[in-house]
Amino acid sequence: MTACPLCDTPAGTVLWQDACCHVVHVDEPDYPSFLRVILNAHVKEMTDLPAVDQAALMRVVFAAEAALREVLAPDKINLASLGNLVPHLHWHVIPRFADDPHFPNPVWGARLRDTPHAAPATLTSQLAAALTLRLGRVPETE
Amino acid sequence: MTACPLCDTPAGTVLWQDACCHVVHVDEPDYPSFLRVILNAHVKEMTDLPAVDQAALMRVVFAAEAALREVLAPDKINLASLGNLVPHLHWHVIPRFADDPHFPNPVWGARLRDTPHAAPATLTSQLAAALTLRLGRVPETE
Repeated sequence: MTACPLCDTPAGTVLWQDACCHVVHVDEPDYPSFLRVILNAHVKEMTDLPAVDQAALMRVVFAAEAALREVLAPDKINLASLGNLVPHLHWHVIPRFADDPHFPNPVWGARLRDTPHAAPATLTSQLAAALTLRLGRVPETE
Repeated sequence: MTACPLCDTPAGTVLWQDACCHVVHVDEPDYPSFLRVILNAHVKEMTDLPAVDQAALMRVVFAAEAALREVLAPDKINLASLGNLVPHLHWHVIPRFADDPHFPNPVWGARLRDTPHAAPATLTSQLAAALTLRLGRVPETE
């Protein structure tokens, strides 16, 4: 119906989901631990959402941050909601390391080195478990 | 005491402030309507804050977004908390226009054109009024 890739596909490996949003593990070679929190509905801006839905979405964004910190202990977390190309609300939750390809630049800035940070083999399952611990398990029939 | 520029200076023209944070209008030639919402305390990550303080800060971020939308009607709002260089919580709230220097790239990405979007002469006072309308006026003695 739409030409919106975030309406049409999960856009990554789904780690957690509820009626509001889903958390996906993105396949980014330079950033193997990149998460996105994607609103289920096609809405453009945070201020298009009622306050209760803003809070529900940010609760999941902050749980994704907490899960990444627990599993990977990054030097910094970067959070961003841009959507210039895909105006469907989604939050980038990016663990940053002092030796990653762009640090201290944003991941969209000048590349400084070729040292992608290796992710543990069990990363996806570890992050899914850490998210579920914080957010609870949502029945698949929801 | 610290070498943190966000502890030591307002880092822009203060449009609104309370006990939690302050909103500043940043002097960015390419982005004359760039706002930052800066936590007053020196804290590194959103998940270092208790939930009540996370919510208080995001309420102001979303009010800044609403004020920019009301005054400028941008094509998109970009929100980001990075802090790789200055690990003191601050949110970039950036109105984006289809003809701005980097659109649709992030403002940290490749520059595509030389057309900074002119800001109205009364922008600072308009944004301050729009923020106060949403957030209320905080006594200066707070």
